Amino acid sequence: MADGLTVPFALAAGLSGAIDQTAIIVTAGLAEIAAGSIAMGLGGYLAAKSDAEHYAREQRREQKEVAEIPEEEMEEVAQVFRGYGLTREQVAPVVHALSERPKAWVDFMMRFELGLEEPDPKRAVTSAGTIAASYVAGGLIPLSPYMVLQNAYRGLIVSAIVTLIALGVFGFIKGKYTGARALRSALQTMLIGGVAAGAAFALAKWIA
Amino acid sequence: MADGLTVPFALAAGLSGAIDQTAIIVTAGLAEIAAGSIAMGLGGYLAAKSDAEHYAREQRREQKEVAEIPEEEMEEVAQVFRGYGLTREQVAPVVHALSERPKAWVDFMMRFELGLEEPDPKRAVTSAGTIAASYVAGGLIPLSPYMVLQNAYRGLIVSAIVTLIALGVFGFIKGKYTGARALRSALQTMLIGGVAAGAAFALAKWIA
Repeated sequence: MADGLTVPFALAAGLSGAIDQTAIIVTAGLAEIAAGSIAMGLGGYLAAKSDAEHYAREQRREQKEVAEIPEEEMEEVAQVFRGYGLTREQVAPVVHALSERPKAWVDFMMRFELGLEEPDPKRAVTSAGTIAASYVAGGLIPLSPYMVLQNAYRGLIVSAIVTLIALGVFGFIKGKYTGARALRSALQTMLIGGVAAGAAFALAKWIA
Repeated sequence: MADGLTVPFALAAGLSGAIDQTAIIVTAGLAEIAAGSIAMGLGGYLAAKSDAEHYAREQRREQKEVAEIPEEEMEEVAQVFRGYGLTREQVAPVVHALSERPKAWVDFMMRFELGLEEPDPKRAVTSAGTIAASYVAGGLIPLSPYMVLQNAYRGLIVSAIVTLIALGVFGFIKGKYTGARALRSALQTMLIGGVAAGAAFALAKWIA
């Protein structure tokens, strides 16, 4: 969502520095939104799918090792705890108990040896849809002023105001949600958008 | 890197469907690269920093809890293992041993209760630099044909060939590196780039 706001905003701002025709700015902005939402949505879908495959592959490997070389796997369980200064004797009951529950043992290794969380199978589709939809929704905010106004310069001014407010609100909510300081989070997302747009504007003006 | 290749490629391809002037396509592409590299680089830097702060905040909370309400924290350690079907008796030695080593105990809770890895303090800067630099390097590949050739259509053809090859090579190397099937990974990154560019082209042609 923040990328969806920032990049089309900065692109349109940059083009305003080089071109007067809002039609071209809008076309470029919409092309960017189409490209970005597909690249991120489809990219997110395939990344989630390959995470799920990676998990399944490692799980099969652990299942095989637990069945075929249990002594080495028991030693690996013990190693996990020895990193926390526990002795072989203190860990023995846990190692022994896990060795009698192969399914729980594999789950334990996946999480505590390899640090992998079991991916939600539906996540791939929903995350792809969410990413793509929020990129489109985010991108239409900075572009809409250029659609309404016929003057690129005025479009830029309105787009900057609208987008910086949207980035601030988005950053504030994100900060609240993730437990960070909300106001600082709001200022950070606004800063990223402002710097990106400023750089794109300066570069395009310098070229044109 | 893949986003850096895909989005400027798709944007330029989209604009080729609407505009003949390669100068505008190059300007828009460079503005996109500036915007995208700053948004992703600065965004990556701030995300890494806020991960580090989140870790430090949770660590302080665990340190406080271990010191002030040790019984509840010992119960939480036991809970982690009970999820794997272990009994209170089997887990008791580990719980007891951890309770005598507050530092290791906090580390254990961070990793196994909260699932957090300690972030590398230098990672924020290097990851931001890497993201930004690879976005710029990736973006210049699809744009360079439009800089050399004066015809948008010919630029598009050469850009598509060069970019799809670069996406394929990148996907192949990424697949090799992450242990997935390299050829499939190559086809996937090429597919994302092709679909994104096709959609941007169709949309821009439809508007223009």
